[in-house]
Amino acid sequence: MSVASTPAQSPAATSTDPETLGWMRGFPPAPDRLITFHDGSFRNFPELRWAWSNIRQLVPTMNVWRGAGPASSLPREDHDIGAIASTTMDGRPMTFAKMLEETYADGIAVLHRGRLIYERYFGALKPHKPHIGMSVTKSFTGVLAGILVVEGKIDPQAPVTDYVPELKRSGFGDARVHEVMDMTTGLAYTEIYTDKNSDVWGLRRANGMAPIPPDYDGPTNIFDFLIAQAKQGEHGKAFAYKTVNTDVLAWICRRASNMTLSELLSERIWQPMGAEEDAYYHVDRIGTESGGGGLSTTLRDLARFGETKRNHGRFNGRQIVASQVVEDIAGGGDPEKFKPAGYTTLPGASYRNQWWVTHNEHGAYMARGVYGQGIYVDPKAEMVIARYASHPVAGNAANDPVTLPAYMALAKSLMAGG
Amino acid sequence: MSVASTPAQSPAATSTDPETLGWMRGFPPAPDRLITFHDGSFRNFPELRWAWSNIRQLVPTMNVWRGAGPASSLPREDHDIGAIASTTMDGRPMTFAKMLEETYADGIAVLHRGRLIYERYFGALKPHKPHIGMSVTKSFTGVLAGILVVEGKIDPQAPVTDYVPELKRSGFGDARVHEVMDMTTGLAYTEIYTDKNSDVWGLRRANGMAPIPPDYDGPTNIFDFLIAQAKQGEHGKAFAYKTVNTDVLAWICRRASNMTLSELLSERIWQPMGAEEDAYYHVDRIGTESGGGGLSTTLRDLARFGETKRNHGRFNGRQIVASQVVEDIAGGGDPEKFKPAGYTTLPGASYRNQWWVTHNEHGAYMARGVYGQGIYVDPKAEMVIARYASHPVAGNAANDPVTLPAYMALAKSLMAGG
Repeated sequence: MSVASTPAQSPAATSTDPETLGWMRGFPPAPDRLITFHDGSFRNFPELRWAWSNIRQLVPTMNVWRGAGPASSLPREDHDIGAIASTTMDGRPMTFAKMLEETYADGIAVLHRGRLIYERYFGALKPHKPHIGMSVTKSFTGVLAGILVVEGKIDPQAPVTDYVPELKRSGFGDARVHEVMDMTTGLAYTEIYTDKNSDVWGLRRANGMAPIPPDYDGPTNIFDFLIAQAKQGEHGKAFAYKTVNTDVLAWICRRASNMTLSELLSERIWQPMGAEEDAYYHVDRIGTESGGGGLSTTLRDLARFGETKRNHGRFNGRQIVASQVVEDIAGGGDPEKFKPAGYTTLPGASYRNQWWVTHNEHGAYMARGVYGQGIYVDPKAEMVIARYASHPVAGNAANDPVTLPAYMALAKSLMAGG
Repeated sequence: MSVASTPAQSPAATSTDPETLGWMRGFPPAPDRLITFHDGSFRNFPELRWAWSNIRQLVPTMNVWRGAGPASSLPREDHDIGAIASTTMDGRPMTFAKMLEETYADGIAVLHRGRLIYERYFGALKPHKPHIGMSVTKSFTGVLAGILVVEGKIDPQAPVTDYVPELKRSGFGDARVHEVMDMTTGLAYTEIYTDKNSDVWGLRRANGMAPIPPDYDGPTNIFDFLIAQAKQGEHGKAFAYKTVNTDVLAWICRRASNMTLSELLSERIWQPMGAEEDAYYHVDRIGTESGGGGLSTTLRDLARFGETKRNHGRFNGRQIVASQVVEDIAGGGDPEKFKPAGYTTLPGASYRNQWWVTHNEHGAYMARGVYGQGIYVDPKAEMVIARYASHPVAGNAANDPVTLPAYMALAKSLMAGG
């Protein structure tokens, strides 16, 4: 979890619009408008405002095929909700439109009762272009794992090593699958985005999202990185947000299905859902998808996935995800295990199978990714919000004080027929 | 041009099938079934049999969007042409089906009068998966340039430097656009695939298709590589196959259209043609598409493009490419300028705007790429053949003695109603 920051510390969204600034425009781009993977500039702000919509130009990727059929319908009913007022957690007056600007949204799609009532694009994002979901990816992995549980291919109570014996001597050696799903493993791994010495940087080098220095002798693929993780503390006691859990869960899914994560997502969700465009994962040096953070999708397809969840797994005229997978997530995990993690913007919340569950008055639950990526499902208001962003600050503690009250205000307005 | 080789020197197609051998299968793949970009193994045989169908998992790429509309229809009329007999240039009896096996085809699609009469997939290729076209890419670049010529945005008689002043002090400094289109420039650059010291390896390092050693001080992007090319001999005198010409032509197209090659191909061809799947280019470290060899498409979309050519630029109910662009290519270049290059399998042929023109009795012309990629348009037989392959030998001199007689035999059979 990163330290919170007010947007006032960084240039505003409009003044860092990558299209206006001409990032990566021209043949070649001007030296001061060039973004590359190898020099690490794609992670700088405002360069990341371009990069998060163009991951495949920076690193190798694997396709998630949408199939040959038509895209599922996403009926439109435009409703200008931009003026809907809210109050930020620190007491400032806000509107929905102003929230988008202040939190560096690249795009937002709002569904109410299955109708697309509001859709906006900013920065480098276009309706047909995939944007990286960062840790929203985890929530896809969780649903895929849930599908395999219902199919009897994964037993949540089984030891992780039943599926991945290679983890025997790692920190996962005595962990159960459900502990990995809920991130209650006890691991030494740290995930502090602002600390270059944090283990998350090792994961990024291994999963292909950070350059590998010539003299580097650490793991250069995801599997090797996971095998090297050490235990610290006990499993099952408390929630601790560590991406390696999801990458282990993805490994379990591959072993249980004998499919790549891309094939699994394509066959079980992307094709039946009638996705509008192919999605993709970035991959490591041996072709392993980053199941913890590597999925890029279009905004509308992200919204379709959220709507599938809200509809108890049904979408495009068919049951895509078994309803018990959805109910299990929506029901949440144990808030007592979540509390010690200290997410001040998420009081009373829990984490269940790679989803964040608010336990608020609407029973809302979320997929969340750094730099402001998210799916927000509000069952009571029959509302789904899909959002991609390129916030200067990684941690969502920088977004939540502005976005979460705006989402609740919108939900209430829609419920009131506003 | 590479040295010819008989397939007998390499293991047969069936015994090197990447699916059967399990290349890149498993999580992780077994060490002796692993293919990576960084260790260069993707260029070895038989590893390349997997790699040519999976380029985007190895290197960064840029999408060529097919648009949101339906795929154009490709009516089927199955016709088993596998037994059609021919005689190889070295006098061996052959059948169409045997030809495919002997030349390591990954897929073939044959259109007759616009109907898909024969479609087969082998190795790692699937109908929805893009395969790299290698230098077939050049023929797309040529057609895009031709479109811009007709639109008045490129003048073939103008100096290259009118569009790319950066090339002033290079070997292209006094070249005309049409000399680049027809590859009649005089350049020191050499393109010998079997010689690791040949300039083509420098191009591959620059365009992202070969790893860059830590101590490398050569160009690391396509533009820098082109600027560094020196003149040798005279422009306009003789055809010499040098990929740098096409990369210069791609640069001219970008400057003339103010679009990336991907945007241009999407807007002018892929969308109006009703392509079935997105295509993609691999890109260098600064996001520049390889216009000389980097395009991957599905086999059917390659066939659609060939059929567009055969139909004088019309396809999917509309004129996609102006007919004069097609006629100009089909008419060919100057066989006298082609002759000194010494292509023994292509007697009497010529090269025109990035296409190979046979000047045979059917007026056939071709797009050709190393390892056996190709489009073969036979106007008289109303036949188009699209083919992807992973031959152990790069140069098409290894394919031509078997493929070209088989294509002519098929053409004659179809004309005879067989």
